[in-house]
Amino acid sequence: MVAKRELKFIKSLHQKKYRSRHGLFLAEGVKLVGELLRSGWEPRQLFTTEPVDGIEGALHISEQDLTKVSALVQPNKVLGIFGIPRPVSPVFEGWLLALDGVRDPGNLGTIIRLCDWFGIRDLLCSPDTVDCYNPKVLMATMGSVARVRVHYMPLEQTLAGSGLPVFGASMEGEPLGSFRMPGEGILVMGSESHGISQGVARLLQNTLGISPFGKEEAESLNVAAAAAIFLYEIRRRPAGPTQM
Amino acid sequence: MVAKRELKFIKSLHQKKYRSRHGLFLAEGVKLVGELLRSGWEPRQLFTTEPVDGIEGALHISEQDLTKVSALVQPNKVLGIFGIPRPVSPVFEGWLLALDGVRDPGNLGTIIRLCDWFGIRDLLCSPDTVDCYNPKVLMATMGSVARVRVHYMPLEQTLAGSGLPVFGASMEGEPLGSFRMPGEGILVMGSESHGISQGVARLLQNTLGISPFGKEEAESLNVAAAAAIFLYEIRRRPAGPTQM
Repeated sequence: MVAKRELKFIKSLHQKKYRSRHGLFLAEGVKLVGELLRSGWEPRQLFTTEPVDGIEGALHISEQDLTKVSALVQPNKVLGIFGIPRPVSPVFEGWLLALDGVRDPGNLGTIIRLCDWFGIRDLLCSPDTVDCYNPKVLMATMGSVARVRVHYMPLEQTLAGSGLPVFGASMEGEPLGSFRMPGEGILVMGSESHGISQGVARLLQNTLGISPFGKEEAESLNVAAAAAIFLYEIRRRPAGPTQM
Repeated sequence: MVAKRELKFIKSLHQKKYRSRHGLFLAEGVKLVGELLRSGWEPRQLFTTEPVDGIEGALHISEQDLTKVSALVQPNKVLGIFGIPRPVSPVFEGWLLALDGVRDPGNLGTIIRLCDWFGIRDLLCSPDTVDCYNPKVLMATMGSVARVRVHYMPLEQTLAGSGLPVFGASMEGEPLGSFRMPGEGILVMGSESHGISQGVARLLQNTLGISPFGKEEAESLNVAAAAAIFLYEIRRRPAGPTQM
Protein backbone atom coordinates (compact mmCIF):
# COMPACT_ATOMS: atom_id res chain seq x y z
CA MET A 1 0.00 0.00 0.00
CA VAL A 2 1.19 3.48 -0.82
CA ALA A 3 1.10 5.85 2.14
CA LYS A 4 -1.42 8.69 2.14
CA ARG A 5 1.35 11.25 2.39
CA GLU A 6 3.03 9.76 -0.66
CA LEU A 7 -0.22 9.82 -2.65
CA LYS A 8 -0.67 13.47 -1.76
CA PHE A 9 2.88 14.19 -2.89
CA ILE A 10 2.36 12.42 -6.22
CA LYS A 11 -0.82 14.35 -6.86
CA SER A 12 0.88 17.66 -6.08
CA LEU A 13 3.06 17.09 -9.16
CA HIS A 14 0.04 17.84 -11.37
CA GLN A 15 0.88 21.45 -10.56
CA LYS A 16 3.81 23.32 -12.01
CA LYS A 17 4.55 25.00 -8.68
CA TYR A 18 5.31 21.67 -7.03
CA ARG A 19 7.11 20.25 -10.06
CA SER A 20 9.47 23.24 -9.96
CA ARG A 21 9.90 23.08 -6.20
CA HIS A 22 10.89 19.41 -6.22
CA GLY A 23 12.47 19.21 -9.68
CA LEU A 24 10.26 16.20 -10.38
CA PHE A 25 7.46 15.33 -12.76
CA LEU A 26 4.88 12.63 -13.12
CA ALA A 27 4.75 10.30 -16.11
CA GLU A 28 1.78 8.00 -16.60
CA GLY A 29 0.90 5.03 -18.70
CA VAL A 30 2.78 2.07 -20.16
CA LYS A 31 3.64 3.97 -23.31
CA LEU A 32 5.07 7.20 -21.88
CA VAL A 33 6.95 5.59 -18.98
CA GLY A 34 8.25 2.89 -21.32
CA GLU A 35 9.58 5.47 -23.78
CA LEU A 36 11.31 7.43 -21.01
CA LEU A 37 12.99 4.28 -19.66
CA ARG A 38 14.04 3.12 -23.14
CA SER A 39 15.59 6.55 -23.75
CA GLY A 40 17.66 6.22 -20.56
CA TRP A 41 15.71 8.51 -18.23
CA GLU A 42 16.21 7.44 -14.61
CA PRO A 43 13.06 7.17 -12.54
CA ARG A 44 13.02 8.20 -8.88
CA GLN A 45 10.13 5.86 -8.29
CA LEU A 46 7.92 3.56 -10.32
CA PHE A 47 4.48 2.21 -9.44
CA THR A 48 2.44 -0.40 -11.28
CA THR A 49 -0.93 -2.03 -10.59
CA GLU A 50 0.39 -5.33 -11.99
CA PRO A 51 3.68 -6.64 -13.43
CA VAL A 52 4.38 -4.89 -16.74
CA ASP A 53 6.93 -6.03 -19.35
CA GLY A 54 10.00 -3.83 -19.45
CA ILE A 55 9.24 -2.08 -16.17
CA GLU A 56 11.46 -3.36 -13.37
CA GLY A 57 11.72 -2.44 -9.72
CA ALA A 58 8.24 -0.93 -9.46
CA LEU A 59 6.26 -0.74 -6.23
CA HIS A 60 2.70 -1.98 -6.22
CA ILE A 61 -0.13 0.56 -6.33
CA SER A 62 -3.81 -0.38 -6.18
CA GLU A 63 -6.18 0.59 -9.00
CA GLN A 64 -8.02 2.75 -6.49
CA ASP A 65 -4.93 4.66 -5.41
CA LEU A 66 -3.80 5.07 -9.01
CA THR A 67 -7.18 6.57 -9.89
CA LYS A 68 -6.83 8.97 -6.96
CA VAL A 69 -3.48 10.39 -8.05
CA SER A 70 -3.79 10.07 -11.82
CA ALA A 71 -4.22 13.04 -14.14
CA LEU A 72 -5.68 10.74 -16.79
CA VAL A 73 -9.36 10.02 -17.38
CA GLN A 74 -8.41 6.38 -17.83
CA PRO A 75 -5.36 5.58 -15.69
CA ASN A 76 -3.17 2.99 -17.34
CA LYS A 77 -1.29 0.64 -14.98
CA VAL A 78 1.96 2.57 -14.64
CA LEU A 79 3.04 5.73 -12.91
CA GLY A 80 6.58 7.04 -12.66
CA ILE A 81 8.24 9.94 -10.91
CA PHE A 82 11.16 11.31 -12.88
CA GLY A 83 13.60 14.16 -12.33
CA ILE A 84 13.26 17.21 -14.56
CA PRO A 85 16.50 17.28 -16.58
CA ARG A 86 18.97 20.01 -15.68
CA PRO A 87 19.04 22.82 -18.26
CA VAL A 88 21.60 22.32 -20.99
CA SER A 89 22.48 24.60 -23.88
CA PRO A 90 20.66 24.12 -27.16
CA VAL A 91 22.79 23.06 -30.11
CA PHE A 92 22.54 25.73 -32.78
CA GLU A 93 23.03 23.54 -35.82
CA GLY A 94 20.60 22.67 -38.58
CA TRP A 95 17.00 23.61 -37.82
CA LEU A 96 15.47 24.48 -34.48
CA LEU A 97 11.91 25.42 -33.61
CA ALA A 98 11.01 28.19 -31.15
CA LEU A 99 7.59 28.74 -29.55
CA ASP A 100 6.60 32.19 -28.37
CA GLY A 101 3.77 32.06 -25.85
CA VAL A 102 2.03 28.84 -26.91
CA ARG A 103 -0.35 28.13 -24.03
CA ASP A 104 -2.42 25.16 -25.12
CA PRO A 105 -1.11 21.85 -23.68
CA GLY A 106 -2.44 19.73 -26.56
CA ASN A 107 -0.70 21.95 -29.09
CA LEU A 108 2.65 21.83 -27.29
CA GLY A 109 2.40 18.04 -26.96
CA THR A 110 1.62 17.65 -30.66
CA ILE A 111 4.50 19.97 -31.57
CA ILE A 112 6.97 17.95 -29.46
CA ARG A 113 5.75 14.83 -31.25
CA LEU A 114 6.29 16.61 -34.59
CA CYS A 115 9.82 17.62 -33.58
CA ASP A 116 10.57 13.99 -32.82
CA TRP A 117 9.16 12.85 -36.18
CA PHE A 118 11.02 15.48 -38.17
CA GLY A 119 14.31 15.19 -36.30
CA ILE A 120 14.28 18.58 -34.54
CA ARG A 121 16.44 17.92 -31.45
CA ASP A 122 16.05 21.27 -29.70
CA LEU A 123 12.78 23.08 -29.07
CA LEU A 124 13.11 26.59 -27.61
CA CYS A 125 10.17 27.85 -25.56
CA SER A 126 9.53 31.33 -24.19
CA PRO A 127 9.02 31.29 -20.42
CA ASP A 128 5.26 31.89 -20.88
CA THR A 129 4.84 28.80 -23.05
CA VAL A 130 3.00 25.99 -21.24
CA ASP A 131 5.22 23.66 -19.17
CA CYS A 132 6.23 20.55 -21.10
CA TYR A 133 5.89 18.44 -17.91
CA ASN A 134 2.22 19.36 -17.59
CA PRO A 135 0.34 16.02 -17.61
CA LYS A 136 -1.79 17.03 -20.63
CA VAL A 137 1.30 17.97 -22.62
CA LEU A 138 3.02 14.69 -21.73
CA MET A 139 -0.05 12.74 -22.78
CA ALA A 140 -0.17 14.49 -26.17
CA THR A 141 3.54 13.83 -26.82
CA MET A 142 2.87 10.08 -26.84
CA GLY A 143 6.30 9.52 -25.34
CA SER A 144 8.27 11.62 -27.80
CA VAL A 145 9.16 14.08 -25.02
CA ALA A 146 11.82 11.48 -24.16
CA ARG A 147 13.70 12.33 -27.35
CA VAL A 148 13.30 16.10 -27.80
CA ARG A 149 15.17 18.63 -25.66
CA VAL A 150 12.77 21.34 -24.56
CA HIS A 151 14.43 24.55 -23.36
CA TYR A 152 12.64 27.35 -21.51
CA MET A 153 14.53 30.57 -22.01
CA PRO A 154 13.98 34.21 -22.96
CA LEU A 155 13.75 34.02 -26.74
CA GLU A 156 15.15 37.43 -27.62
CA GLN A 157 18.64 36.91 -26.20
CA THR A 158 18.74 33.30 -27.30
CA LEU A 159 17.80 33.99 -30.90
CA ALA A 160 20.04 37.04 -31.15
CA GLY A 161 23.02 35.01 -29.99
CA SER A 162 22.30 31.86 -31.97
CA GLY A 163 24.28 32.66 -35.09
CA LEU A 164 21.42 31.25 -37.19
CA PRO A 165 18.94 33.02 -39.47
CA VAL A 166 15.58 33.43 -37.73
CA PHE A 167 12.25 33.06 -39.54
CA GLY A 168 8.75 33.70 -38.27
CA ALA A 169 5.53 31.90 -39.11
CA SER A 170 2.82 34.42 -39.89
CA MET A 171 -0.43 34.28 -41.81
CA GLU A 172 0.70 37.38 -43.71
CA GLY A 173 4.14 35.98 -44.48
CA GLU A 174 5.73 35.16 -47.82
CA PRO A 175 4.22 31.92 -49.17
CA LEU A 176 6.25 29.03 -47.81
CA GLY A 177 5.98 27.14 -51.10
CA SER A 178 7.85 29.78 -53.10
CA PHE A 179 10.51 30.54 -50.49
CA ARG A 180 13.96 29.02 -50.94
CA MET A 181 14.50 27.32 -47.59
CA PRO A 182 18.05 27.51 -46.25
CA GLY A 183 19.76 24.45 -44.78
CA GLU A 184 19.62 25.77 -41.24
CA GLY A 185 17.76 28.28 -39.17
CA ILE A 186 15.30 28.83 -36.36
CA LEU A 187 11.58 28.95 -37.07
CA VAL A 188 9.52 30.93 -34.55
CA MET A 189 5.82 30.29 -34.05
CA GLY A 190 3.66 32.55 -31.90
CA SER A 191 0.39 31.91 -30.15
CA GLU A 192 -2.78 31.78 -32.24
CA SER A 193 -4.26 34.75 -30.44
CA HIS A 194 -1.23 37.00 -29.97
CA GLY A 195 1.24 36.01 -32.68
CA ILE A 196 4.96 36.61 -32.26
CA SER A 197 5.96 39.11 -29.57
CA GLN A 198 7.43 42.46 -30.59
CA GLY A 199 10.96 41.92 -29.32
CA VAL A 200 11.23 38.62 -31.18
CA ALA A 201 9.59 40.02 -34.34
CA ARG A 202 12.49 42.50 -34.65
CA LEU A 203 14.93 39.61 -35.02
CA LEU A 204 13.18 37.93 -37.93
CA GLN A 205 14.97 37.80 -41.24
CA ASN A 206 11.72 36.94 -42.95
CA THR A 207 8.17 35.86 -42.20
CA LEU A 208 6.68 32.87 -43.99
CA GLY A 209 3.06 31.82 -44.34
CA ILE A 210 0.88 29.00 -45.59
CA SER A 211 -1.45 30.11 -48.36
CA PRO A 212 -5.15 29.29 -48.06
CA PHE A 213 -6.81 27.65 -51.03
CA GLY A 214 -9.40 29.39 -53.12
CA LYS A 215 -10.82 31.93 -50.72
CA GLU A 216 -10.12 34.30 -47.94
CA GLU A 217 -12.60 33.53 -45.18
CA ALA A 218 -10.65 30.96 -43.17
CA GLU A 219 -8.84 32.96 -40.56
CA SER A 220 -5.95 30.93 -39.32
CA LEU A 221 -4.59 27.49 -38.81
CA ASN A 222 -4.16 25.74 -35.51
CA VAL A 223 -0.55 26.35 -34.42
CA ALA A 224 0.31 22.64 -34.29
CA ALA A 225 -1.21 22.07 -37.75
CA ALA A 226 0.88 24.97 -39.09
CA ALA A 227 3.99 23.57 -37.37
CA ALA A 228 3.37 20.23 -39.10
CA ILE A 229 3.41 21.89 -42.52
CA PHE A 230 6.47 24.06 -41.79
CA LEU A 231 8.53 21.14 -40.48
CA TYR A 232 7.45 18.97 -43.40
CA GLU A 233 8.61 21.66 -45.83
CA ILE A 234 11.90 22.17 -43.99
CA ARG A 235 12.67 18.46 -44.29
CA ARG A 236 11.19 17.83 -47.74
CA ARG A 237 13.60 20.08 -49.57
CA PRO A 238 17.22 19.16 -50.05
CA ALA A 239 19.13 21.36 -47.65
CA GLY A 240 20.79 24.15 -49.58
CA PRO A 241 23.37 26.62 -48.29
CA THR A 242 22.26 29.30 -45.86
CA GLN A 243 21.04 32.40 -47.64
CA MET A 244 22.31 34.94 -45.13
CA MET B 1 -34.67 35.49 -16.98
CA VAL B 2 -34.41 32.19 -18.76
CA ALA B 3 -36.77 29.55 -17.33
CA LYS B 4 -35.28 26.60 -15.50
CA ARG B 5 -36.83 24.16 -17.94
CA GLU B 6 -35.23 26.02 -20.83
CA LEU B 7 -31.81 25.98 -19.14
CA LYS B 8 -32.12 22.23 -18.66
CA PHE B 9 -33.04 21.82 -22.31
CA ILE B 10 -30.03 23.86 -23.45
CA LYS B 11 -27.70 21.82 -21.29
CA SER B 12 -29.11 18.56 -22.63
CA LEU B 13 -27.68 19.54 -26.04
CA HIS B 14 -24.17 18.83 -24.71
CA GLN B 15 -25.12 15.20 -25.34
CA LYS B 16 -25.35 13.64 -28.76
CA LYS B 17 -28.49 11.71 -27.81
CA TYR B 18 -30.45 14.91 -27.26
CA ARG B 19 -28.91 16.69 -30.24
CA SER B 20 -30.09 13.84 -32.46
CA ARG B 21 -33.51 13.67 -30.83
CA HIS B 22 -34.21 17.38 -31.33
CA GLY B 23 -32.13 18.00 -34.45
CA LEU B 24 -30.51 20.93 -32.67
CA PHE B 25 -27.06 21.87 -31.47
CA LEU B 26 -25.51 24.43 -29.21
CA ALA B 27 -23.04 27.04 -30.44
CA GLU B 28 -21.17 29.20 -27.97
CA GLY B 29 -19.06 32.29 -28.04
CA VAL B 30 -18.96 35.47 -30.11
CA LYS B 31 -16.65 33.92 -32.68
CA LEU B 32 -18.48 30.67 -33.45
CA VAL B 33 -22.01 32.10 -33.35
CA GLY B 34 -20.86 35.08 -35.43
CA GLU B 35 -19.36 32.82 -38.10
CA LEU B 36 -22.52 30.72 -38.29
CA LEU B 37 -24.70 33.81 -38.70
CA ARG B 38 -22.38 35.34 -41.30
CA SER B 39 -22.51 32.08 -43.27
CA GLY B 40 -26.31 32.21 -43.31
CA TRP B 41 -27.14 29.62 -40.65
CA GLU B 42 -30.52 30.38 -39.07
CA PRO B 43 -30.60 30.28 -35.29
CA ARG B 44 -33.65 28.92 -33.43
CA GLN B 45 -32.72 31.01 -30.44
CA LEU B 46 -29.93 33.38 -29.43
CA PHE B 47 -28.93 34.45 -25.94
CA THR B 48 -26.42 37.08 -24.92
CA THR B 49 -25.29 38.44 -21.57
CA GLU B 50 -24.97 41.93 -23.09
CA PRO B 51 -25.57 43.54 -26.49
CA VAL B 52 -23.05 42.16 -29.00
CA ASP B 53 -22.24 43.68 -32.40
CA GLY B 54 -23.68 41.67 -35.27
CA ILE B 55 -25.95 39.58 -33.08
CA GLU B 56 -29.57 40.73 -33.36
CA GLY B 57 -32.77 39.50 -31.73
CA ALA B 58 -31.07 37.77 -28.82
CA LEU B 59 -32.73 37.17 -25.46
CA HIS B 60 -30.90 38.20 -22.33
CA ILE B 61 -29.20 35.52 -20.25
CA SER B 62 -27.44 36.25 -16.96
CA GLU B 63 -23.75 35.42 -16.54
CA GLN B 64 -24.78 32.93 -13.89
CA ASP B 65 -27.23 31.10 -16.11
CA LEU B 66 -24.77 31.09 -18.99
CA THR B 67 -22.15 29.50 -16.75
CA LYS B 68 -24.70 26.85 -15.74
CA VAL B 69 -25.49 25.73 -19.27
CA SER B 70 -22.14 26.38 -20.96
CA ALA B 71 -19.82 23.61 -22.10
CA LEU B 72 -16.90 26.06 -22.03
CA VAL B 73 -14.48 26.62 -19.18
CA GLN B 74 -14.78 30.33 -19.86
CA PRO B 75 -18.26 31.11 -21.24
CA ASN B 76 -18.13 33.95 -23.71
CA LYS B 77 -21.25 36.19 -23.82
CA VAL B 78 -23.17 34.43 -26.57
CA LEU B 79 -25.06 31.18 -26.89
CA GLY B 80 -27.09 30.05 -29.87
CA ILE B 81 -29.30 27.10 -30.63
CA PHE B 82 -29.11 26.08 -34.27
CA GLY B 83 -30.74 23.34 -36.32
CA ILE B 84 -28.52 20.50 -37.50
CA PRO B 85 -28.53 20.79 -41.31
CA ARG B 86 -30.46 18.12 -43.18
CA PRO B 87 -28.19 15.57 -44.87
CA VAL B 88 -27.25 16.47 -48.42
CA SER B 89 -25.16 14.52 -50.90
CA PRO B 90 -21.45 15.20 -51.03
CA VAL B 91 -20.13 16.66 -54.27
CA PHE B 92 -17.60 14.24 -55.73
CA GLU B 93 -15.41 16.74 -57.53
CA GLY B 94 -11.82 17.71 -56.84
CA TRP B 95 -10.50 16.52 -53.50
CA LEU B 96 -12.48 15.26 -50.53
CA LEU B 97 -11.28 14.04 -47.17
CA ALA B 98 -12.73 11.00 -45.37
CA LEU B 99 -12.24 10.12 -41.70
CA ASP B 100 -12.54 6.52 -40.58
CA GLY B 101 -13.17 6.27 -36.85
CA VAL B 102 -11.51 9.47 -35.62
CA ARG B 103 -12.73 9.77 -32.03
CA ASP B 104 -10.85 12.72 -30.56
CA PRO B 105 -12.93 15.93 -30.60
CA GLY B 106 -9.91 18.24 -30.78
CA ASN B 107 -8.57 16.38 -33.79
CA LEU B 108 -11.88 16.51 -35.67
CA GLY B 109 -12.22 20.22 -34.92
CA THR B 110 -8.69 20.92 -36.16
CA ILE B 111 -9.34 18.86 -39.30
CA ILE B 112 -12.54 20.80 -40.08
CA ARG B 113 -10.54 24.01 -39.70
CA LEU B 114 -7.91 22.58 -42.07
CA CYS B 115 -10.59 21.66 -44.63
CA ASP B 116 -11.81 25.23 -44.51
CA TRP B 117 -8.29 26.62 -44.98
CA PHE B 118 -7.45 24.29 -47.85
CA GLY B 119 -10.80 24.58 -49.62
CA ILE B 120 -12.09 21.05 -48.99
CA ARG B 121 -15.88 21.54 -49.13
CA ASP B 122 -17.00 18.02 -48.20
CA LEU B 123 -15.70 15.98 -45.29
CA LEU B 124 -16.94 12.37 -45.14
CA CYS B 125 -17.04 10.77 -41.70
CA SER B 126 -17.67 7.14 -40.77
CA PRO B 127 -20.60 6.81 -38.36
CA ASP B 128 -18.18 6.05 -35.48
CA THR B 129 -16.28 9.30 -35.97
CA VAL B 130 -16.97 11.83 -33.19
CA ASP B 131 -20.02 14.06 -33.76
CA CYS B 132 -19.08 17.40 -35.30
CA TYR B 133 -21.70 19.17 -33.15
CA ASN B 134 -19.99 18.02 -29.97
CA PRO B 135 -19.14 21.25 -28.06
CA LYS B 136 -15.41 20.40 -27.95
CA VAL B 137 -15.32 19.83 -31.69
CA LEU B 138 -17.14 23.10 -32.37
CA MET B 139 -14.72 24.95 -30.13
CA ALA B 140 -11.71 23.54 -31.99
CA THR B 141 -13.16 24.47 -35.40
CA MET B 142 -12.97 28.17 -34.49
CA GLY B 143 -16.10 28.75 -36.54
CA SER B 144 -14.97 27.01 -39.71
CA VAL B 145 -17.66 24.34 -39.23
CA ALA B 146 -19.93 27.00 -40.77
CA ARG B 147 -18.20 26.54 -44.12
CA VAL B 148 -17.40 22.83 -44.39
CA ARG B 149 -20.08 20.22 -45.08
CA VAL B 150 -19.59 17.28 -42.74
CA HIS B 151 -21.33 14.07 -43.82
CA TYR B 152 -21.80 11.02 -41.61
CA MET B 153 -22.22 7.95 -43.77
CA PRO B 154 -20.94 4.41 -44.16
CA LEU B 155 -17.61 4.94 -45.93
CA GLU B 156 -17.44 1.71 -47.91
CA GLN B 157 -20.51 2.27 -50.07
CA THR B 158 -19.83 5.98 -50.36
CA LEU B 159 -16.25 5.58 -51.53
CA ALA B 160 -17.06 2.69 -53.85
CA GLY B 161 -19.73 4.76 -55.58
CA SER B 162 -17.85 8.05 -55.69
CA GLY B 163 -16.22 7.64 -59.10
CA LEU B 164 -13.00 9.09 -57.65
CA PRO B 165 -9.66 7.43 -56.90
CA VAL B 166 -9.34 6.68 -53.19
CA PHE B 167 -6.05 7.03 -51.30
CA GLY B 168 -5.23 6.10 -47.74
CA ALA B 169 -2.89 7.79 -45.30
CA SER B 170 -0.66 5.21 -43.64
CA MET B 171 2.68 5.34 -41.89
CA GLU B 172 3.85 2.51 -44.15
CA GLY B 173 2.59 4.16 -47.35
CA GLU B 174 4.55 5.38 -50.35
CA PRO B 175 6.33 8.63 -49.46
CA LEU B 176 3.94 11.49 -50.18
CA GLY B 177 6.77 13.66 -51.50
CA SER B 178 7.59 11.32 -54.39
CA PHE B 179 4.00 10.47 -55.33
CA ARG B 180 2.48 12.22 -58.34
CA MET B 181 -0.72 13.62 -56.88
CA PRO B 182 -3.74 13.50 -59.19
CA GLY B 183 -6.04 16.48 -59.57
CA GLU B 184 -8.90 14.83 -57.72
CA GLY B 185 -9.52 12.04 -55.29
CA ILE B 186 -10.57 11.10 -51.80
CA LEU B 187 -8.00 10.85 -49.05
CA VAL B 188 -8.92 8.53 -46.18
CA MET B 189 -7.41 8.92 -42.73
CA GLY B 190 -7.96 6.35 -40.00
CA SER B 191 -7.75 6.64 -36.25
CA GLU B 192 -4.29 6.80 -34.65
CA SER B 193 -4.88 3.59 -32.74
CA HIS B 194 -6.77 1.47 -35.28
CA GLY B 195 -5.84 2.85 -38.68
CA ILE B 196 -8.15 2.42 -41.66
CA SER B 197 -10.82 -0.28 -41.33
CA GLN B 198 -10.55 -3.43 -43.45
CA GLY B 199 -13.53 -2.81 -45.71
CA VAL B 200 -12.29 0.65 -46.59
CA ALA B 201 -8.68 -0.52 -47.00
CA ARG B 202 -9.80 -2.81 -49.84
CA LEU B 203 -10.95 0.23 -51.84
CA LEU B 204 -7.64 2.09 -51.71
CA GLN B 205 -5.80 2.63 -54.95
CA ASN B 206 -2.67 3.47 -53.03
CA THR B 207 -1.47 4.28 -49.52
CA LEU B 208 0.67 7.34 -48.92
CA GLY B 209 2.83 8.23 -45.93
CA ILE B 210 4.92 11.02 -44.49
CA SER B 211 8.56 10.06 -44.08
CA PRO B 212 10.23 10.65 -40.72
CA PHE B 213 13.53 12.49 -40.72
CA GLY B 214 16.78 10.82 -39.83
CA LYS B 215 15.65 8.00 -37.60
CA GLU B 216 13.06 5.40 -36.96
CA GLU B 217 12.02 5.77 -33.34
CA ALA B 218 9.14 8.24 -33.66
CA GLU B 219 6.06 6.10 -33.97
CA SER B 220 3.36 8.14 -35.58
CA LEU B 221 2.03 11.59 -36.15
CA ASN B 222 -1.09 13.04 -34.62
CA VAL B 223 -3.91 12.52 -37.16
CA ALA B 224 -4.67 16.24 -37.44
CA ALA B 225 -0.96 17.05 -37.94
CA ALA B 226 -0.79 14.41 -40.68
CA ALA B 227 -3.97 15.81 -42.27
CA ALA B 228 -2.35 19.26 -42.33
CA ILE B 229 0.60 17.94 -44.33
CA PHE B 230 -1.53 15.89 -46.73
CA LEU B 231 -3.88 18.78 -47.51
CA TYR B 232 -0.95 21.14 -47.92
CA GLU B 233 0.62 18.75 -50.44
CA ILE B 234 -2.66 18.25 -52.29
CA ARG B 235 -3.00 22.01 -52.74
CA ARG B 236 0.66 22.87 -53.25
CA ARG B 237 1.06 20.95 -56.47
CA PRO B 238 -0.50 22.08 -59.69
CA ALA B 239 -3.44 19.74 -60.24
CA GLY B 240 -2.51 17.24 -62.92
CA PRO B 241 -4.82 14.79 -64.68
CA THR B 242 -6.17 11.86 -62.70
CA GLN B 243 -3.85 8.89 -62.89
CA MET B 244 -6.49 6.14 -62.87
